[in-house]
Amino acid sequence: MASEKVLAYLDANRQQHVDQLCEFLRIPSISSVSEHNEDTKRAAAFVADELRELGLAVEVHDLGGHPLIFAETEIRPDRKTLLFYGHYDVQPVDPLELWETPPFEPRIEDGIVYARGSSDDKGQVYTHIKALEAYIREGVEVPVNVKFIIEGEEECGGHSIYEFTEKNPEKLSCDAIIVSDTTLYNETTPGICYSLKGLAYMEIRVSGPAMDLHSGSYGGTVQNPGNALAEIVAKLKDSDGRCLVPGFYDDVLDLDQEERDGFAALGYTDEILQKETGVVAPFGEAGYTTLERMWARPTCDVNGLVSGYGGEGAKTVIPAKAMAKVSMRLVPNQDPEKIAKAFQDYVRQIAPDGVEVEVINHHNANPVLVPRKSEMMKAGMAALEKGFGAPPVFIREGGSIPIVGTFQDCLKSPVLLLGYGLATDNIHSPNEKFHLENFWRGARTSAILMAEAAL
Amino acid sequence: MASEKVLAYLDANRQQHVDQLCEFLRIPSISSVSEHNEDTKRAAAFVADELRELGLAVEVHDLGGHPLIFAETEIRPDRKTLLFYGHYDVQPVDPLELWETPPFEPRIEDGIVYARGSSDDKGQVYTHIKALEAYIREGVEVPVNVKFIIEGEEECGGHSIYEFTEKNPEKLSCDAIIVSDTTLYNETTPGICYSLKGLAYMEIRVSGPAMDLHSGSYGGTVQNPGNALAEIVAKLKDSDGRCLVPGFYDDVLDLDQEERDGFAALGYTDEILQKETGVVAPFGEAGYTTLERMWARPTCDVNGLVSGYGGEGAKTVIPAKAMAKVSMRLVPNQDPEKIAKAFQDYVRQIAPDGVEVEVINHHNANPVLVPRKSEMMKAGMAALEKGFGAPPVFIREGGSIPIVGTFQDCLKSPVLLLGYGLATDNIHSPNEKFHLENFWRGARTSAILMAEAAL
Repeated sequence: MASEKVLAYLDANRQQHVDQLCEFLRIPSISSVSEHNEDTKRAAAFVADELRELGLAVEVHDLGGHPLIFAETEIRPDRKTLLFYGHYDVQPVDPLELWETPPFEPRIEDGIVYARGSSDDKGQVYTHIKALEAYIREGVEVPVNVKFIIEGEEECGGHSIYEFTEKNPEKLSCDAIIVSDTTLYNETTPGICYSLKGLAYMEIRVSGPAMDLHSGSYGGTVQNPGNALAEIVAKLKDSDGRCLVPGFYDDVLDLDQEERDGFAALGYTDEILQKETGVVAPFGEAGYTTLERMWARPTCDVNGLVSGYGGEGAKTVIPAKAMAKVSMRLVPNQDPEKIAKAFQDYVRQIAPDGVEVEVINHHNANPVLVPRKSEMMKAGMAALEKGFGAPPVFIREGGSIPIVGTFQDCLKSPVLLLGYGLATDNIHSPNEKFHLENFWRGARTSAILMAEAAL
Repeated sequence: MASEKVLAYLDANRQQHVDQLCEFLRIPSISSVSEHNEDTKRAAAFVADELRELGLAVEVHDLGGHPLIFAETEIRPDRKTLLFYGHYDVQPVDPLELWETPPFEPRIEDGIVYARGSSDDKGQVYTHIKALEAYIREGVEVPVNVKFIIEGEEECGGHSIYEFTEKNPEKLSCDAIIVSDTTLYNETTPGICYSLKGLAYMEIRVSGPAMDLHSGSYGGTVQNPGNALAEIVAKLKDSDGRCLVPGFYDDVLDLDQEERDGFAALGYTDEILQKETGVVAPFGEAGYTTLERMWARPTCDVNGLVSGYGGEGAKTVIPAKAMAKVSMRLVPNQDPEKIAKAFQDYVRQIAPDGVEVEVINHHNANPVLVPRKSEMMKAGMAALEKGFGAPPVFIREGGSIPIVGTFQDCLKSPVLLLGYGLATDNIHSPNEKFHLENFWRGARTSAILMAEAAL
């Protein structure tokens, strides 16, 4: 257990930490929009300054994108080392008109702070900084060596942190990597996430006539790219939602009975899904519960369709082109590159006559699986239980955090995914929010983890 | 033959008529886009003013949509009466970026005028006005009574002209209806069109979740509207291009041997199709030539697809909605309402689970078949031969001109489809164009027809 002094410091400074977080949230560090490059720099400086004030050795690296921050306390060989990861950049804010208050003017209401980046990921990464601050300001020896790697390109797909990690495994070497960029299981139950899905993001482009044609003048004489695309997309899945790309399921690691039992015990119901999403009914592969499909079965989803006329009323054209964005969420043991290749081969094979079909692989991410039994996992579970006052459950996550796979590969250390957000935090959407209670509990959890990991 | 004075007037005023046409083409009268309503009014006023200046009695009717223009010369019972139909509204212009010069800034190059509406239908309807102008300005008695009915809702499926025609058959009574909204057979061969396809224009709307969902958070748990739409669209046709809507072909009137022989004699080749459209190969129902499919077989084409993210790069959403616009071109004896109903029933039947599917019938048009043997058909053939300097051939048209069926039903007069455009005029596409030589020849043909019809 962390020193009482440390936890008392966190309790005593709750309001001040919220004020500082709000200052951080006021910086519109949208990494994918170049006109915000100066803001992104300011957010990096905000983080670097705080870490410097705590006495850490801080390095700010320019690898051609947004600044990458590496910082560390004194490294003593007799202490274990924790590497904390996070990102200071945020998603774009459109559609702006759907925000109830401006995205970069934090509003606090009923114990919730509303602002872009509050949950993803400024509010979460900031808990670790405040936890370390508590030790240092109270003059309590930090039980572990602490390293931070905080990037500014998570939301724009930048490569700085990948390059840095691959080139500097010794600098980043550690006993565990702590990533707080996910969620609790629900409002009252903390969770420790032990698996992330991977991704293969594809685009199918169908070309037919050289220009949009009048559907009267040429109907019946040429293949219609819109119809051809629909034929292709329809053949990606069966009526049950099972992906038809050959070999798609070959490498899938099945859930073990303990996992299935664990999921079932969580009591996730289809009513919850319907309430969260507004769908008339759940849908998917037979033989799996909704939670099993969400967390542990690979998927194949249309993300976008565009062809011909999409405006009001009628326009009688045979479109020259048709495009589908399709992404596959992959599960442990599936290889994104192999799947992307199989997808490309399959689409070319099923492409109808009379059109040209191009299949682009936008980007991939490896799935992640962390062993559920390890000393560090135990420390994480203990910290979450003490920090949140409830026993945590094992959860998985359907989303991808690509850097986690790279950390595993390069650093060979266990990853602890300690999420402090909620699924309803509207990340990537208007009115993003973060519960202050979770912010404070998160800081306590991080402080406790520094002690538990040292045991 | 028309008076030499009349034809000489048309020759002498070629440039002026082109200048006036360009003025007409500069008005962006896109009837389906409500922000252009004022422009559509201006285009109506342009036409009404010209007809008024020629001394016609002009009526502008507001039937709740865009203005409908009716005009007539003095009606003398000893003269036959020709009713000229046309439309002053135009198609939308997107994709705007594919236009080489702005769609409403007419550009003339190598004897061709490029502008939205140049061929469809401003350039064509204008030939009739200029033909009448020639008689009136030269003081030559017009050999027939001339009526004009010119609408502004052809491209948006408006109902004004239908209502007007059904309520005013006596006002519109005539010995022949002249419609110039189609094409020559090819650059050197005029054609007289004796059949138009009908239309049933549908929109399929698929709704799933209440908002776009994160494809990681909810992938595998809900039906994806984009995938569901593709499944539906893929089941509309077989791999041969044959429509799968039950009963679709039941009422189709087959071509007779004379028609098939006539089509074959025209020497239309797949190379022509490939050159005109840029497709890699023709495509369609087995058992029919390309020209037979184009002119006399019903079709089912996607006109537009929209779902989720269509921008650059990747966005990992499960779209809340997906939409397809699908139109069926129908041939003589098919009933658009019956087909639309069969389409709706079929789509509802094949709709996948887990989404809500709505099928809208935007508008319909009856197919048209005109007897190939009549006095007026002879007059039309003679006028075309003299106007274009080459004997015309019998052709059909894959496009629809819905009002023609209503004219046939209500006015009981023969319809002459004298098209002055070319199949390569890019109507409904970027860079729409019209050959000035055909504009001038069209005006001559119309003037000659006024004389031939009087014989």
